[in-house]
Amino acid sequence: MIGLALLGCGRIGRIHAANIAAHPKARLVRVFDPVEAAVAAVVARCGGRPAADAAEAIRDPEVAAVVIATPTDTHLELLAETLEAGRWAFLEKPIDLDIRRVLAARRRLAPALGRVQLGFNRRFDPHFRAFRRELRQLGRLYRLRITSFDPEPPPVDYLRRSGGLFRDMTIHDFDMARFLLPAEPRHVVAVAAARVDGATLMAGDVDVATVVLESEDGLSAVIENCRRAAYGYDQRLEALGEKGLLQADNPRPTTLSRWHADATAARDPLLPFFLERYAASYQAELDAFLQAIITDAAPSPGFEDGVRAQLLAEAAVVAHGEGRRVDVRTLEATLDAG
Amino acid sequence: MIGLALLGCGRIGRIHAANIAAHPKARLVRVFDPVEAAVAAVVARCGGRPAADAAEAIRDPEVAAVVIATPTDTHLELLAETLEAGRWAFLEKPIDLDIRRVLAARRRLAPALGRVQLGFNRRFDPHFRAFRRELRQLGRLYRLRITSFDPEPPPVDYLRRSGGLFRDMTIHDFDMARFLLPAEPRHVVAVAAARVDGATLMAGDVDVATVVLESEDGLSAVIENCRRAAYGYDQRLEALGEKGLLQADNPRPTTLSRWHADATAARDPLLPFFLERYAASYQAELDAFLQAIITDAAPSPGFEDGVRAQLLAEAAVVAHGEGRRVDVRTLEATLDAG
Amino acid sequence: MIGLALLGCGRIGRIHAANIAAHPKARLVRVFDPVEAAVAAVVARCGGRPAADAAEAIRDPEVAAVVIATPTDTHLELLAETLEAGRWAFLEKPIDLDIRRVLAARRRLAPALGRVQLGFNRRFDPHFRAFRRELRQLGRLYRLRITSFDPEPPPVDYLRRSGGLFRDMTIHDFDMARFLLPAEPRHVVAVAAARVDGATLMAGDVDVATVVLESEDGLSAVIENCRRAAYGYDQRLEALGEKGLLQADNPRPTTLSRWHADATAARDPLLPFFLERYAASYQAELDAFLQAIITDAAPSPGFEDGVRAQLLAEAAVVAHGEGRRVDVRTLEATLDAG
Amino acid sequence: MIGLALLGCGRIGRIHAANIAAHPKARLVRVFDPVEAAVAAVVARCGGRPAADAAEAIRDPEVAAVVIATPTDTHLELLAETLEAGRWAFLEKPIDLDIRRVLAARRRLAPALGRVQLGFNRRFDPHFRAFRRELRQLGRLYRLRITSFDPEPPPVDYLRRSGGLFRDMTIHDFDMARFLLPAEPRHVVAVAAARVDGATLMAGDVDVATVVLESEDGLSAVIENCRRAAYGYDQRLEALGEKGLLQADNPRPTTLSRWHADATAARDPLLPFFLERYAASYQAELDAFLQAIITDAAPSPGFEDGVRAQLLAEAAVVAHGEGRRVDVRTLEATLDAG
Repeated sequence: MIGLALLGCGRIGRIHAANIAAHPKARLVRVFDPVEAAVAAVVARCGGRPAADAAEAIRDPEVAAVVIATPTDTHLELLAETLEAGRWAFLEKPIDLDIRRVLAARRRLAPALGRVQLGFNRRFDPHFRAFRRELRQLGRLYRLRITSFDPEPPPVDYLRRSGGLFRDMTIHDFDMARFLLPAEPRHVVAVAAARVDGATLMAGDVDVATVVLESEDGLSAVIENCRRAAYGYDQRLEALGEKGLLQADNPRPTTLSRWHADATAARDPLLPFFLERYAASYQAELDAFLQAIITDAAPSPGFEDGVRAQLLAEAAVVAHGEGRRVDVRTLEATLDAG
Repeated sequence: MIGLALLGCGRIGRIHAANIAAHPKARLVRVFDPVEAAVAAVVARCGGRPAADAAEAIRDPEVAAVVIATPTDTHLELLAETLEAGRWAFLEKPIDLDIRRVLAARRRLAPALGRVQLGFNRRFDPHFRAFRRELRQLGRLYRLRITSFDPEPPPVDYLRRSGGLFRDMTIHDFDMARFLLPAEPRHVVAVAAARVDGATLMAGDVDVATVVLESEDGLSAVIENCRRAAYGYDQRLEALGEKGLLQADNPRPTTLSRWHADATAARDPLLPFFLERYAASYQAELDAFLQAIITDAAPSPGFEDGVRAQLLAEAAVVAHGEGRRVDVRTLEATLDAG
Repeated sequence: MIGLALLGCGRIGRIHAANIAAHPKARLVRVFDPVEAAVAAVVARCGGRPAADAAEAIRDPEVAAVVIATPTDTHLELLAETLEAGRWAFLEKPIDLDIRRVLAARRRLAPALGRVQLGFNRRFDPHFRAFRRELRQLGRLYRLRITSFDPEPPPVDYLRRSGGLFRDMTIHDFDMARFLLPAEPRHVVAVAAARVDGATLMAGDVDVATVVLESEDGLSAVIENCRRAAYGYDQRLEALGEKGLLQADNPRPTTLSRWHADATAARDPLLPFFLERYAASYQAELDAFLQAIITDAAPSPGFEDGVRAQLLAEAAVVAHGEGRRVDVRTLEATLDAG
Repeated sequence: MIGLALLGCGRIGRIHAANIAAHPKARLVRVFDPVEAAVAAVVARCGGRPAADAAEAIRDPEVAAVVIATPTDTHLELLAETLEAGRWAFLEKPIDLDIRRVLAARRRLAPALGRVQLGFNRRFDPHFRAFRRELRQLGRLYRLRITSFDPEPPPVDYLRRSGGLFRDMTIHDFDMARFLLPAEPRHVVAVAAARVDGATLMAGDVDVATVVLESEDGLSAVIENCRRAAYGYDQRLEALGEKGLLQADNPRPTTLSRWHADATAARDPLLPFFLERYAASYQAELDAFLQAIITDAAPSPGFEDGVRAQLLAEAAVVAHGEGRRVDVRTLEATLDAG
């Protein structure tokens, strides 16, 4: 049994709590959140004891690993404390909204980063994992496309704190591209606009975007984003290679289809949002984290995967803003030197 | 150039006229129908000259073949006259509503029946032809299903003259079953009711039916019929065999699909009815008929195919009426002796 | 917490044991099977204590309900003992292979049958439940089709003990038809043969079948069975009604599709067999059983549902054997009188 | 009857000849190609008389319109001659490989350009026309995607003369984007590489490309190109808007699908290439051209549509070469001034 502390009892924190409670090899030991009622609710459902502060939770002797699901601006401090205490850390993305702080932390925490797993849950989706396996049977890969549309734009005050579409939403797709591509993306091109919602424009953000990542050997991945899809949460993959094409479609609530006067073969609307769509992947990422602890192996995706996805987001911001192709390696060198 | 006479300028007659006019190896020589305006319209669009009566059309020296698309009760007389005059005959189905007259005609006209093609146009549908070819790759065949739903019930006065669902609508499916099955059906079972339309019941007919045909070696074909399908004209095939399953779906007007708040992947409603659905097969059956004439070969499907389909219809009538499995061979012997 | 005894540690028994162990409101108290190693394995994984015999398990004071997953010929005796002891019973189907014994038990156990749930798990499949709900939106129902193909025929010695295809395999589809149809089936017609496997023929059984059930008002349900489908376990529904058509397709392991030189849009093979296909429905039926106990309500499906499905199987045996439509009500009267 | 002259008897010329011969309102009057055997073959099949040179064909008194399907470098001269002679012109794309010559011709021929139709046949595809109609029902449009993959790269010597992927292949997709989008594209971004074929690289061209077109109000269209798709000629559209998503899939030869041990629901490979895929659109564009002549209306798409598509191609060449977003309006001004 691996004892875990949970920091943060928001939407994602509660998912992790429930998955810990249901996992045969894990148990929730300590729970911290500044909102006491939130802690009480988690403890009542999933076990563990409240902690007076994060430090108490992290340093509880029965705690071997810490799940950090707090607001983004507390991530780095809590991660440092967790690693310092010799615990394993499961860190939600993004690491920090300020890429320079992320790069600085990478240098500072380097020796301990082999104990960190990043919360890129989509890597654990069974459909996408099967997609990745079959990708190898396409022969030489020609192109990849990642479609990722949210059902509805988030509230404006969320938008203002989010870092913008590339850092907040596309970040998952950057990681998915890296998960699927055989080589690291080198160049980034981005086209984006605010077309969905006037509020987005007011918040200085965009809500429709196309990002093209290109690796050194000319393989490109196209990411399509939109903040609204009337029919649900749309998450698709498509790859073209020497031997053909591979698609991952959206799972639907049921296998029904309807034939009416208006239309035939009509399937269900898609699942509403990520909690439903990726329920299985949240369980699987926790399982992988526990497995890493048990076997004392570096978890994957790790801190560096978080860094690389964020660098792609920074590159996209520049590419869109300046209307030019951005070299990620050059950008990293500049930022890391800064 | 093969000269053709057309007898009957109704819906089907006009299709044949247009296909003759468009075919590079055929021309319309003579047209007859008691309704002069109908003849005039056909002649204006597709060429040929009006005939005073069927005999004049058939015996025109430039006429090599006759398309008989007249009311069913005139079929046998016109067929006899056509064959007697040494012409080739393309005969619309059914041969005659009275199976005893059909069997009598088979005996009487036997020597000339090698010049008759029956109007089972669905055999020429490109999708069903491809289905038939691929069927051979399923290994041992386990079962076959033919789904055939009309969009709307016909008018009651049509129903009254039609001979009933099995003789009028299922007849096409009986022929399709025979076209696809490796062996002749031996037994027939039928379950049917009037559920769609009160008028059907009043007319003493049924409008939903399931017929199972079974060959001597236990291979069965299930025919599903209904007089109404709100989404269009539904014509599907499915076969299960040793190596898997084969389906023929309906062609749709376009390849579009829609993803809305109510449904995803919604395709077009189906084509409205047989004129649209089987347009290509009417052309192809004419082409096959002309090819048979040119090569002096017996056309297929022939008169005997019409007889066999009608015998299955008679068997279905009895099977449904008496609630028992009917042996087609015994039924044929009884009727033929009668 | 509801304490349960499990009788029978075969394939189905082990599924129930695991689901009990995972259910928050249930715990496994006692386990019995003549094979001690099987009991030990279940106890090790799912808790509970071994019982010396069925009686000890049933009468354990902590046991409120008994899951009877033993060989069919022991069902009735164990059910009687369970009900006599005042326990609730979850009984696997079929009740007994001999319909006369089933009918006799119905008379004998009548007062206690409100505490019995029958193991027709497919009623709890989420896709089929959604199908049933939407069925009501089709307006007047015209016809229903249930397709149910196993991946591979069972071993011959199983066939010999199974009661034959109608009693062993179609039984699930008879129950599904009753679950979906608005009225009780009145007449049965059946066509069947041994086409898949020579061994089936040797065992005196059939392996391909079509059964048509017809209710008094002419609504029919067609059941299609086959003991082999090369592409997996095929379980589909289709209903045609006034307003259109409704289909339930098979769930597939992933949402991938492939476009190759040989084919496009190719989806996964189907799930291998019922354990994978109906995993969720086994959990849901247990949950419904516990819910019935908690609320002291008669569970559904109940004993009578088991009786009625078996009567349809008996009618199918006669219908196939005698080549005639069988009236279920008459058959029931005859058997019940016998 | 409209008399037409055909200049050029290559693959596309022969298609036009056949469609003219089959059209009830058109007849082929004159045919010219420097290869006499090619002319003879066309005349034998489709009628008309050989012409000694293009001028003789154009100026034949029975010729009202000229189809220019000659090598690209002769287009402008023949177009000028056709318009000068007062004939209508159907001009295959591209107008000329040199955009400066195209712009100069636009100035020079301006008064007569209302008699020119450009050969953007895909605008007449029934599926894409239906897509365009339904697009209006999506509410505010968020994004558009055009997928266009050829089955196989062309021969290297063709590549060398083609002007490169953007000018030769993407040109169709630029026109499709303009056909579908409510506003003119203003900016162009392009990412491309040679990944399919070593020969492409040797020829200095690319064979995989992504182009993003953006209109002034931020609406973007993504074009995906590849020179090889193992499963056939892949031509798809997808649009996301306020009310949902709209897709146009590829038509397939048949409606069959197969369920085997390896895969289920497998459809046919796609049609081999544009001759098969767009057969109906070649007929429809001719019909539209004749209709324009009959009603004395400016044909659509016209010369300016050809110009604008080529300007997008030029912009894509620059955008890819310089790794930056290119403003089409600025580029046009520069080139037109040049």
